[in-house]
Amino acid sequence: MTTKTNDAPWVRVVPLGGLGEIGKNMMVLETVDDIVVIDAGVLFPEWNMPGIDVVIPDMDYLDENADRVRALLITHGHEDHIGAVPHFLKRVNVPVYAPAMAEALIQEKLRQARMREHSEVRIVHPGEQHEIGDLKIEWFAQCHSVPDSTGIAIDTPAGVVIHTGDFKIDNAPVIGNPTDLGVLADICQDGALLLMADSTYAEEEGYSPSDREVVDNLPNLIGAAKDRVIISSFASQIARIQIVADACVKHNRKLCVLGRSMINNTKIGRELGHLDIPGDLIVTAAEAKSLPDDKVLILTTGSQGEPQSGLVRMSRNDHRDITIQDNDTIIMSASTIPGNEVPVNESINDLVRLGARVITNHETRTHVPGHARKEELRMLLNATRPKYFVPVHGEYRMLKAHIDLAISTGVKEENAFLLIDGDVLELDPDSGEVVDRIEAGHIFVHGLGIWNESGNVVVERRSLQHNGVVSVAFSRDTVDGSLVGKPKIVSVGFVHTEDSEELLREAEDALSPILDQHLKKAIEWGELEGIVRNTVGSFLGRRTKRRPLIITSAIDV
Amino acid sequence: MTTKTNDAPWVRVVPLGGLGEIGKNMMVLETVDDIVVIDAGVLFPEWNMPGIDVVIPDMDYLDENADRVRALLITHGHEDHIGAVPHFLKRVNVPVYAPAMAEALIQEKLRQARMREHSEVRIVHPGEQHEIGDLKIEWFAQCHSVPDSTGIAIDTPAGVVIHTGDFKIDNAPVIGNPTDLGVLADICQDGALLLMADSTYAEEEGYSPSDREVVDNLPNLIGAAKDRVIISSFASQIARIQIVADACVKHNRKLCVLGRSMINNTKIGRELGHLDIPGDLIVTAAEAKSLPDDKVLILTTGSQGEPQSGLVRMSRNDHRDITIQDNDTIIMSASTIPGNEVPVNESINDLVRLGARVITNHETRTHVPGHARKEELRMLLNATRPKYFVPVHGEYRMLKAHIDLAISTGVKEENAFLLIDGDVLELDPDSGEVVDRIEAGHIFVHGLGIWNESGNVVVERRSLQHNGVVSVAFSRDTVDGSLVGKPKIVSVGFVHTEDSEELLREAEDALSPILDQHLKKAIEWGELEGIVRNTVGSFLGRRTKRRPLIITSAIDV
Repeated sequence: MTTKTNDAPWVRVVPLGGLGEIGKNMMVLETVDDIVVIDAGVLFPEWNMPGIDVVIPDMDYLDENADRVRALLITHGHEDHIGAVPHFLKRVNVPVYAPAMAEALIQEKLRQARMREHSEVRIVHPGEQHEIGDLKIEWFAQCHSVPDSTGIAIDTPAGVVIHTGDFKIDNAPVIGNPTDLGVLADICQDGALLLMADSTYAEEEGYSPSDREVVDNLPNLIGAAKDRVIISSFASQIARIQIVADACVKHNRKLCVLGRSMINNTKIGRELGHLDIPGDLIVTAAEAKSLPDDKVLILTTGSQGEPQSGLVRMSRNDHRDITIQDNDTIIMSASTIPGNEVPVNESINDLVRLGARVITNHETRTHVPGHARKEELRMLLNATRPKYFVPVHGEYRMLKAHIDLAISTGVKEENAFLLIDGDVLELDPDSGEVVDRIEAGHIFVHGLGIWNESGNVVVERRSLQHNGVVSVAFSRDTVDGSLVGKPKIVSVGFVHTEDSEELLREAEDALSPILDQHLKKAIEWGELEGIVRNTVGSFLGRRTKRRPLIITSAIDV
Repeated sequence: MTTKTNDAPWVRVVPLGGLGEIGKNMMVLETVDDIVVIDAGVLFPEWNMPGIDVVIPDMDYLDENADRVRALLITHGHEDHIGAVPHFLKRVNVPVYAPAMAEALIQEKLRQARMREHSEVRIVHPGEQHEIGDLKIEWFAQCHSVPDSTGIAIDTPAGVVIHTGDFKIDNAPVIGNPTDLGVLADICQDGALLLMADSTYAEEEGYSPSDREVVDNLPNLIGAAKDRVIISSFASQIARIQIVADACVKHNRKLCVLGRSMINNTKIGRELGHLDIPGDLIVTAAEAKSLPDDKVLILTTGSQGEPQSGLVRMSRNDHRDITIQDNDTIIMSASTIPGNEVPVNESINDLVRLGARVITNHETRTHVPGHARKEELRMLLNATRPKYFVPVHGEYRMLKAHIDLAISTGVKEENAFLLIDGDVLELDPDSGEVVDRIEAGHIFVHGLGIWNESGNVVVERRSLQHNGVVSVAFSRDTVDGSLVGKPKIVSVGFVHTEDSEELLREAEDALSPILDQHLKKAIEWGELEGIVRNTVGSFLGRRTKRRPLIITSAIDV
């Protein structure tokens, strides 16, 4: 790797692992002596990654520099920031520093992965300073849609680097203190060297609405409902759980919490003191069933149409405890994450079909997002006065909007860097430059399988799903390699069974003499496979106008 | 089929073919002597129908009653209303009545299907009455997002039936006359027997915005652009083409139309006199390239992220004629149809990455939808005063909202019917009842293959895309059925190639003795297949935590 030639102390940042969203899941910060990693999250697969469970960042760069990696620093407890912590610690076992809520969620992951004993996770609080290697690191409180969200200020030999984490500026959050821009301005009293800031809503004008709007609307909707109320939300939205619990007290309903993550997060929220819920408010599903409908509120998961979630099971009428009935009021206290529109819509239609009334965020504000809009981002830029700027957490279009905004707020054009994953940006007080590009692919996780995106599995699955597969098998003589018997062709997902029998028999007849002829020539396997593929593929293509994927097996007899 | 017992004349309606959207693609109207069919459209496959080209209604019911089918009546020229006309005419060759724009588009479809000579398509105009069997049929003008949109009034022995087609009420459309509610009120002077009305926007409050908003905004955006402008829209939105052409004249740009459907529709629009474009305004792609950037506007397809469309090819940098460059202004003059969010978003990110500025309908109103909202639907109900009401064209939640609205406007609850595809609703002046339910599935079209949804092809593809496929082949002795050689196992889309070799060899070794043992017993093929599936499936499941689809072939040698 090259480095710039002057002798000034430098700092490098390398975003990793965000699929379309740059630096979303992991950010590497590096000086000559030390590396710290900010966040280790997962992404959920996109539509063109069939059968993949989760996607994690490629961490080979950390392996190669393991002797300098000092710590994993966590900003907040969302899956896209902590979901890959076990994978990370298997590669580089260093201490993890995390705010309280994130720490509790990470411990649960490590327990499931049977890694708790060999891992060190330290709780950090806003305002604390930790010396890690030669770096001085301070976490500062941020408002976001999970409690104990933080940003991180890192004092490096080259200057102060600010990473906002995910954030918005809310002057009256339901849980926690309002955003303290004063602290941030104090840390950046000489101007930050580098600001890396959340870009998710950088295309949106104005200020983001406050959670207070939900505090007004949700209880009103609950109060107006005559029969049973079912609310679905994000499990990590602890403030939403508090709002719902308060509304239950006010409107004399018992609260029944369903869904593994919702139950788990409610428990953690209470343990950490974020939730203030009277002990007798919460009832089990069995108790809820024995109460009159107008005395019950059910809080569950499934706002994103996840197939195994509470609300989606209810919509399919296969939830163990709850059967949707006429006059149920269902409130979707969430917005739909882009990409989930189809399953969310499907579940709403199913719920309406079962007799429920469904209220979404489109009708009445039942949710506010947790990301800063343009005015808040300007405010942040003004408070930190960075020399260099790197937008993070957002698709390319959002990063571009954020760059434009930073430049209009005073960052010099040559000091604003729209990085892509793997770019190594080196900065010193004088100048900044992308000095290298490292391998920064994505690792696909499926069951126990882990492979990188250059692997053929996902490509093959894409092909399979469109045209199905045809298997061609034949026997050849172990001695002279000649064809024994007839080749056998079967298909799956290609043509309708009734039509396929005759078609495939004809394909066998077409292939047989060609195969026989080439087997006698003792050609290479790859060439032979190609001939089978062309012969069978052309035959089927002519007859069906579709080309299935063709796999060939030879049995030596 | 049962019918109601009194002697009053009756009329039946049967919605067909809308997937989640009831009666979207086809509506059958039936009296004792006559059947007419309203629209014959296609739907595009949903996410869980991999590899399907289009979905068409199941038309078996029409086959069975072919002697009474008199005509196909078309409301307007959108694919979801005319796309299945060739399929329909192959089943029932009756005259097609269609308004001018739809007729031109249908003729093109019939030409491609080589069916023009044997098909009869008659142009109808609003206000004309046609006697078809014992039915008197009048088309009335509607505003919608394609010119020559109509609704249909059918005077049956039981009373007047109104089918709105797709519509909105626009008092100042860019092309055509404003909605004439007077005509409709006149037709329904004694009150309609039945109103079937578009429900697409029945959940939205208020009135839909007029196309006039786009007439203001689009030219302003074009005027403000400094370099090249590229606009993507729906090809059938002829009014949008006119607005763009007018803006080109005003801002001194030449218009370059790209994309097969955009070129074709512009041609039809000019031939029918809907478009008024000066002859020298339009230039070819080659001519456009020789002009300064600020003298060119490119109008193309691709607003829905369709992989083969103009804009998406440009976003991938593989368009034959156009290379996106810095400072291109791209205007998406369309809204994103639900389900297309992910590909649309992907193309926008790619365009921004190539240096373009992209303006969407979210930022500035560059598009208005063509469907009536609640206030317009109320207006329609007041003008037609129907005894019976059937919401059509919409997902279940929208139909339910429309039913609620109709009841609040005065339709009796027992006279408002939320039908699903295949329901046979029989009405007479006294009462209405769903008297039967016919087979009303969907037919999947893929290349030359056509099969119904109960077929296994789509189910198999869903399985293939998630876990891939494993092929098991073995040879057996033609005389005694015993295993010859070793079984051969290969996989596609299952595990990464590097990992799979050893795993599959081990699976072969595990299978071999079990297969040998069962082959000696000469059991049935189905049972043997089951044993192979269980043996190999359990082995691979234990080792990978995933269960691929398994196909088995036997070669007799």
